[in-house]
Formats: sequence, structure tokens, C-alpha cells
Amino acid sequence: MHGLIGRIRAVPGKRAELAAILIQDDGAMPGCLSYIVAEDPTDADLLWVTEVWTDQAAHRASLQLPAVQAAIAKGRPLIAGFDSQFATKVLGGIGIGG
Amino acid sequence: MHGLIGRIRAVPGKRAELAAILIQDDGAMPGCLSYIVAEDPTDADLLWVTEVWTDQAAHRASLQLPAVQAAIAKGRPLIAGFDSQFATKVLGGIGIGG
Repeated sequence: MHGLIGRIRAVPGKRAELAAILIQDDGAMPGCLSYIVAEDPTDADLLWVTEVWTDQAAHRASLQLPAVQAAIAKGRPLIAGFDSQFATKVLGGIGIGG
Repeated sequence: MHGLIGRIRAVPGKRAELAAILIQDDGAMPGCLSYIVAEDPTDADLLWVTEVWTDQAAHRASLQLPAVQAAIAKGRPLIAGFDSQFATKVLGGIGIGG
């Protein structure tokens, strides 16, 4: 399984708006086993996004879905930058399954 | 919801053994909505552990469960250190639900 752990810096004051776009239900998301959005309690503009996909191809394919393209277009102006991004090889655990 | 994102450094050569202990099924884990263990592909001794709990109290209580205490005792000698640990406030997403 392919994992992503990223920290996104929102435009100041826009974190809640950006988070709402990221967690909105975009319908079927093939290969997505986990997608979790969280606030960093120590910085008012930071969001954490942790993802698990069946494989890297499923993640790449998701970026082409019309609903995801629309969310990217909506969210992009609210993003100041990608603070850090780590790819992982997910081994297992609880709550993986979409 | 209470989130944790941590990077654990295993004793050299012991990552797989440590990961197996972390992802073993410890039975009922009240309040655990997600617990995912992943390898860092860029460093042979690093593991990522991302967790979601209903609240901080549920996470704290889990550490007292006999199965968790046993896993901690088994895993501790395989841990070289905690590389980084972030607490988060989880907002929502896919795959949260235990």
C-alpha cells in the first residue's frame, strides 16, 4: 500500500475553508483506503493530510477524477505551500479499508 | 478527534520486527478509529505511525490495556528513539471508524 503524510500551509485565515474542501465527499474514490485531514494545534494555518492508497497508480489516477480536479481548483488559491510531504510504504493497522 | 503522527527509529535491522509488534491484533481497542503503521522508504530504520482516537482520554486509557502493555514491553528494546511526534485535531475524512 502507498501512503502519503503531508503538511499543508493554508493562506492565513483560510485553514477551515481549505479543510472543508479537502474532506468533502467526492463520491467514489477507487483505491483510497484512508484519507484523514487534521488541524495542527500549534499553528493556526497548518493542516495534516494522511492518505493510504492501494498503490501509487490509484493515487495518481484519483487526481484525474472530475470531482478531484474541481476540488483542486477550488482549494489551490487557499494553499500557501506544502510544508512537508512524505511517501510511505503502508504495512497495516486499524481503519484501512475506505 | 485526537490524532497522532509519529516517526519511530528502530534499532538498526529491527524495523520489521518492531512493525510486526505494532500492527499485531491486540483485540478490542476502545476509541481507536485508525492506527496505521508504515515504513519510510528513504531510511531502513524508520517507521511512521499515524493514529486517530475519539479523544485524548481514549488514547491514554489504551496504554493501560494488558495487551498494549505487553506489546510495549516487547517493542521497547527494538526502539532506538522517537524521531518526531505531532498531536493533531482530526476533522474528518475517509477510513475513520476502527
